Amino acid sequence: MSNLKDHKSGYFITFEGIDYSGKSVQTNLFCQYLMEKKIDYISLRDPGATRISEQIRKILLDNSHTEMSDWTELLLYEAARAQMVEQSILPALAENKLIVCDRFFDSTTAYQGYGRKLDLNIVHNANQIGSCGYTPDLTFLIDLEPKTALQRRTRINADADRLESEGLEFQNRIRNGYLQIAAHEKRVHIVNGNQAVENIHKEIIDIFSATYQGFVD
Amino acid sequence: MSNLKDHKSGYFITFEGIDYSGKSVQTNLFCQYLMEKKIDYISLRDPGATRISEQIRKILLDNSHTEMSDWTELLLYEAARAQMVEQSILPALAENKLIVCDRFFDSTTAYQGYGRKLDLNIVHNANQIGSCGYTPDLTFLIDLEPKTALQRRTRINADADRLESEGLEFQNRIRNGYLQIAAHEKRVHIVNGNQAVENIHKEIIDIFSATYQGFVD
Repeated sequence: MSNLKDHKSGYFITFEGIDYSGKSVQTNLFCQYLMEKKIDYISLRDPGATRISEQIRKILLDNSHTEMSDWTELLLYEAARAQMVEQSILPALAENKLIVCDRFFDSTTAYQGYGRKLDLNIVHNANQIGSCGYTPDLTFLIDLEPKTALQRRTRINADADRLESEGLEFQNRIRNGYLQIAAHEKRVHIVNGNQAVENIHKEIIDIFSATYQGFVD
Repeated sequence: MSNLKDHKSGYFITFEGIDYSGKSVQTNLFCQYLMEKKIDYISLRDPGATRISEQIRKILLDNSHTEMSDWTELLLYEAARAQMVEQSILPALAENKLIVCDRFFDSTTAYQGYGRKLDLNIVHNANQIGSCGYTPDLTFLIDLEPKTALQRRTRINADADRLESEGLEFQNRIRNGYLQIAAHEKRVHIVNGNQAVENIHKEIIDIFSATYQGFVD
């Protein structure tokens, strides 16, 4: 596998999935792999990554903000994203780096579009603004039954943030949304999240190797 | 003039203008007038009015946020607005109240569209989301030469917030943007801001009386 320094335009990978799907664990394992392979990358989380985006993230996930309008939620995610794209993603692409991002606009389509039932066309338009028109090259969707995800959360006894508190029916709609996106977007690869962590990781590496090699060629 | 309680759908008035045009002074005088006339109203400022919108306002006007993306700025204004519309404006309309708002989406068209030179179609679409499709019934544009406004700021020795710090050329583009909006929107009335405060107030009351009376009929 060639080093990204040989690239002309960088490469943008996103990890997606419902809460407690194992998405963040896999993002971290993937970054470790890149480090071992000496591939030059940056790792981001959306919403977040910049100080302005982290301030927006705090407003979004604050459990006391029960009165937040669904439209405000949508627009705040896009605002945080636009800052990350301009301040972190575009400079990294200019340096031909690989970018690994925990969530991106597919989350907005799944959570605010399918989960909150906002008009999908409006969500699409908002995604275009928030991403500055930029689309990931490769997306891993860690797919898991919401029931199983909920059992995981109960097992580790985690506190839920504002969106995680929405319940099983909401998570079911989000999962369905993700599967709809995957059905229409070639860049999205579904990975079964109900396997041992190392097996999921291996599947991700296999897909990455095949796809990224193709991108280099 | 009939009391708004007789209304069926409320009435929504906005005040617009460049910084230091005297817009906020006129908003306050107009609210005093409504109070004297015993017209049931609420007074809002955009961005602001709700606790979530005020948190967003802080991020927007923070002078240290010099790295803020123009798209983030646009989306944060819309996010704050959507919260205000859902939490303050819609309930007030349902109670047939008169709503007086210091700035609304015309500010976004003028500042982010004309001032920041963002694509006007995208700004229009964002305005549609942030306002939940709701348009003011009546808008007062307090028009003033940016040079004169700057002299006022210097005279009162005010600290400038992040947007006010942008300089005269930026304010000229915004003023021009406002005049463009007024040329295309019947609801927008241009009031010459280079007059004595009481004369501007009288002009506003005259326009309000004529328009609002028409609205009641």
